[in-house]
Order: sequence, then structure tokens, then C-alpha cells
Amino acid sequence: MKQTEEMKKVSLGIDIGGTNTAIGVVDSDGNVMVKDSIPTPTHGDIDRYIQDIATAVREIMKSVRLLNPESRFMGIGVGAPNANYYQGTIEYAPNLSFKGIIQFVDLLKAQFPDMENIVLTNDANAAAMGEMVYGGAKDMKNFVMYTLGTGVGSGIIVNGDLVYGHDGFAGECGHTMLVPGGRVCGCGIRGHLEAYCSATGMKRTAFELLAHYNATDSLLAGKSYQQLESKDIYDAAVEGDKVALEVFEITGNYLAQGIADTIHHTSPEAVFIFGGPTAAGDLIFDPIKKNLDKYLLPVFRGKVKILPSKLKMGDAAIVGASALVWKELEKKA
Amino acid sequence: MKQTEEMKKVSLGIDIGGTNTAIGVVDSDGNVMVKDSIPTPTHGDIDRYIQDIATAVREIMKSVRLLNPESRFMGIGVGAPNANYYQGTIEYAPNLSFKGIIQFVDLLKAQFPDMENIVLTNDANAAAMGEMVYGGAKDMKNFVMYTLGTGVGSGIIVNGDLVYGHDGFAGECGHTMLVPGGRVCGCGIRGHLEAYCSATGMKRTAFELLAHYNATDSLLAGKSYQQLESKDIYDAAVEGDKVALEVFEITGNYLAQGIADTIHHTSPEAVFIFGGPTAAGDLIFDPIKKNLDKYLLPVFRGKVKILPSKLKMGDAAIVGASALVWKELEKKA
Repeated sequence: MKQTEEMKKVSLGIDIGGTNTAIGVVDSDGNVMVKDSIPTPTHGDIDRYIQDIATAVREIMKSVRLLNPESRFMGIGVGAPNANYYQGTIEYAPNLSFKGIIQFVDLLKAQFPDMENIVLTNDANAAAMGEMVYGGAKDMKNFVMYTLGTGVGSGIIVNGDLVYGHDGFAGECGHTMLVPGGRVCGCGIRGHLEAYCSATGMKRTAFELLAHYNATDSLLAGKSYQQLESKDIYDAAVEGDKVALEVFEITGNYLAQGIADTIHHTSPEAVFIFGGPTAAGDLIFDPIKKNLDKYLLPVFRGKVKILPSKLKMGDAAIVGASALVWKELEKKA
Repeated sequence: MKQTEEMKKVSLGIDIGGTNTAIGVVDSDGNVMVKDSIPTPTHGDIDRYIQDIATAVREIMKSVRLLNPESRFMGIGVGAPNANYYQGTIEYAPNLSFKGIIQFVDLLKAQFPDMENIVLTNDANAAAMGEMVYGGAKDMKNFVMYTLGTGVGSGIIVNGDLVYGHDGFAGECGHTMLVPGGRVCGCGIRGHLEAYCSATGMKRTAFELLAHYNATDSLLAGKSYQQLESKDIYDAAVEGDKVALEVFEITGNYLAQGIADTIHHTSPEAVFIFGGPTAAGDLIFDPIKKNLDKYLLPVFRGKVKILPSKLKMGDAAIVGASALVWKELEKKA
């Protein structure tokens, strides 16, 4: 079979996490062809890290060329914490060992001078882009992506493009104020959504409920604060544990409150939710849907779809980052 | 002096309020050349109302042609409650007597078939557009406008254009949740920003404080709930009245909380504030600026300007509506 030009085009995705850096090559349908991972270093030496990334990228390009000698690498998309799209920089990322403002795109360009499109954005923005290019938002121009993990990230799409705002840092819906004076958020401010709706937030809710009910017989009562994970809450909820079930009810209601704020701002067609807690399915989606309308202006009620992300959990970060490249090509076309 | 083509271009602005409909002709610098006003009818007959508007518009066009026979009318911009930009409709506006969905733009086009650009949006969006075309946001691509009046409206500009969202109704920052379970908002939901930061919200705060302190000697203690206006609170604050001063402190703090939510969503360069309460100057702006950072992620602190609108209070609605026309021309160019 003769290959079309489209079939030869692939894009590279790099996801920089606090522990690992995932690198993959993705075809234009969003399939990961080859992937690899290197540790995100703790030594703080950005030049060494860039060298390590470049080596891994070259290896991976070699593997792809073995699979298909005609492969055309269209660019590299990078998802990273505290990433500034406009500047191509990673700025003061608290979970990385590199200090200050890192000229990440320039450093990577120096390694791959022939690669025309090297773009960087934060991981949640990359996930939103992945949803639009490969996932459930292919036909949407206005939607929002919430990513639930250790924290809560988000990416806002308006008129078919990511909202970066004036300085490149827009889309921090995880820091919507839910409970003035409430729980301490990771950012230090009290009452933000992230403190209630992240995987960690669910654990905090579980411990509050254990204390509230003195629920010695809950399936969650045997684990320490260090031990308990959101997966345990899901498992207990499936067994019918009352505390665990209430955690999902409360989390969904808080998410509904935050999502309503987002809807009042940007009136999306849908809100996609990505991340570990969404594996619980109806347990988390039902209380969001049930509570949403009570926070919304009449004009928005019953209109906005609340959907699970269609990105595959393990590949989403790479796939999202690689999607940045296709979007960049589309802008230049 | 010979006129340039630019000098001949004028645009019409129509602002539909609950009581009056203001109509004006605005030059490309944002100066109102001629204006008029007709009552917004309570009879509910949209065809009669459109006839009345058309008559007034024709009269006003005649006056402008007397001033400058070479005037070229580039279009009509309309600001209205519950306006849908995409559809050109006014939908279920609670303060107007016209029921259901009104095909406003189509009806107006039937009266002025030669007028190429007839556009409709809600009044706060129109004000944001006015700020960008004629006001303090001329050089900005990302900003937000809050309008404080009987209610609180807002318009969000991203990448130099209004955010309409999927259905045309985006930008309802007045319905950000500030106090879960708090005051009943005009929309029926408890705790929204509008219930705290509108002119009415300030009156509600004043009455709560009078009750809280049993402040018989406050300058505000002599007026009934029906009598008290936000202007009275300003006058009392200028006299050093403690209750009135605290109303401004509290209102500013609540605005800061809501504006922080907006900043976390869209990361604007500036937030403009328009409306009666802004006449109080530092009394309202100082507590916003003082409190804002405590609600913001570090990356946004000290970055976002909080500015009074540069639109003239009396003309802003007409001027904002007329600005829609210039923007429409820019899009087509």
C-alpha cells in the first residue's frame, strides 16, 4: 500500500512530570507508536537534562524510522508544570529541581535546529489540546478540560484555541474559590477547588468524614493518612461503604460548584474530566450532573455536557503534548 | 478642510434598557454626535417597538446628515439584556415585556435592508467592546470588564475578541459563587457575586451592618430600605461614616475574591470596572487592590491592573453598542 503524505507525518510528545519525563511519537490519529521514559532529574542541572532528553528523543526517532523509513517528524510538543506558552519557558516550577526561569524551548531548539515546531504548554492545557485533536472534543470549538490528580489542572478552549491570557498562564480552574476560609490549598490559599476535588482532596474529605461519624467500622478506617489512596476510596465505595460513597457525593457536588463558575465565565459546550477519580464512573459523574444546575443561571441549565475524557490514561500526557504540534501546523497553514 | 474617508464613517448604537432605549450616532473616535431616547414599551408588541426604533433611527440619521452630508453609516450595534450574539436574538429577558425568543436583528434588518452590519450582544459585552475600541483597553488583547449597577455584568476579551462561548451567553462573572449558602441573588441562587457587589448588594451590606452594630447614629440609619441608594452610602463614607466606609471595604474585598476567580480562568492584563459605585474612586478601588493578591496564585500576584473604565457614564451604553460595528468591520477586513 502506498503511503499518503498524511500517513508519514508524526509528532513527538514530551511530558515533564515531577518524577519521570515521558517521551513518545504519536501518529496523526493519536496512536502512540513508540514511547520511552527517563527520570526527571533532581540534580538541578538543566543542560544535562536537555542532553538526556535529546539522546532519548534521537533514540526514539531511530526506532520510528525502523518502523517506517518515510516518517516525517513535524515537531515536538512539551507539557510541563508552570509552562509559559508565549515565552517557551518553565517558570519557577515548585516540583522541579531547575530554579528560576528555564528557556526550555530555546534549549531544545539548539539540539534540534531542523525541527520547525517546538512548543511548550502546561500539562492540563496539553490534555485539553489532546482532547480536541484526538479525543472527544474533535468537533467542539468551546470546551473545558479538568484534570484531577494530585492537583487539579484545567485547559480552556475558546473559538477552537487554548486560552493563554495575557501572560500565558490562564486556565487555573483548580484555584477557583469554593469555600472561603476553608481547607489549605497546595498554593497556600484557603478554600480552593484543588483542596477538595483532587485525589488528595478526596482523601482529606474521607478523613474528615471518618472523624465526623467516628466511623470505626468504615473500610477506610484501617489505613493511615500516609497509606490511604483515592483508589482505596473507590474500592470501598464499590463495596457499599457509606463513608466512601459520601466522599464521592461531596466531591461531585464541589466539582459542580466549581464547574458552574467556569460555565458562567466561558459558556462551554462540554466540560471533560480526566484523571484517576474518573475511573469511578457514575460514582463521580452522577453527583456532578445532579448538582450542577443548582449553581447555574437558568440560561445554562441542562445545556452543558459533563463528559469523561476519551484520552487513554497512560498515554494522555504524551498524546496531549504531541497534539500541540498539529495545532501549531494548523495555525501556520 | 477636506474630509478623509475615516472621518465620514459613523456607527449607530442602540442600548435597550428595562425603562428606556437609547439611540445614538458615534464617530470613529467614540464621540456621541447625536443621541435620543424612547421609552422601552411595556405593551409586549415587538413589531410596534421595532417600528418606533426605526422611526427614531431615521430621525437621528437625518440629523447627522444635516451636520455632515457625507456621513457614511457603517452599521447598527445593539446592546440588550439576554442577547445572543450568534443568533441575533433576545431570549427570555426578564426585564422586558417581549416574551420568548425575539429575532431582533432580523426584524431590524427588515427595516434597514441596506445596512450591512447589524449586530447584537448583551450590554456588558458591549461595554467591554467599547473599552477596547474607544477606551482604556485600546492596546489590550486580553482583559475583562465588570459593570456594577442594579446587577453585575461582565464581558471577557481573549485574543482581542469577546468570549461568547458555545451558545453566545458567556461572560456572566456576576454569578460567580462567593458565599455558598449566602444571600439570595437576583437569579434565585444563593451567594453569587451580584448579591454582594452590585449597587443593590452594597445597600444590602449597609443594612446588615446597621443591624450588626445597632448603629442608630450612622448617617445611613435614617433611610428606609426602599429609600437608601448606593449614592447615599458614598456621601456618608465621604463624611467619615463608619458603617458606610465598612460597606466599601467589604464590597471591595468581595470584588477581589470574584475577580481572582476570573483571573484564574483567563489571566487578563487588566480588569476594568464600570458603573455607579466606581464614582467613589479609591473608596472602592483601594480595598479591591489591597485584597486581590490574597486570593491569587503567586504567578498572578501584582500583575493584573484594576482600572476604572474610561467610558463616559451617560454615553457608555450607546458607545459600547456602536463599537460592535467597528469590530465587525475589522473582522470582515
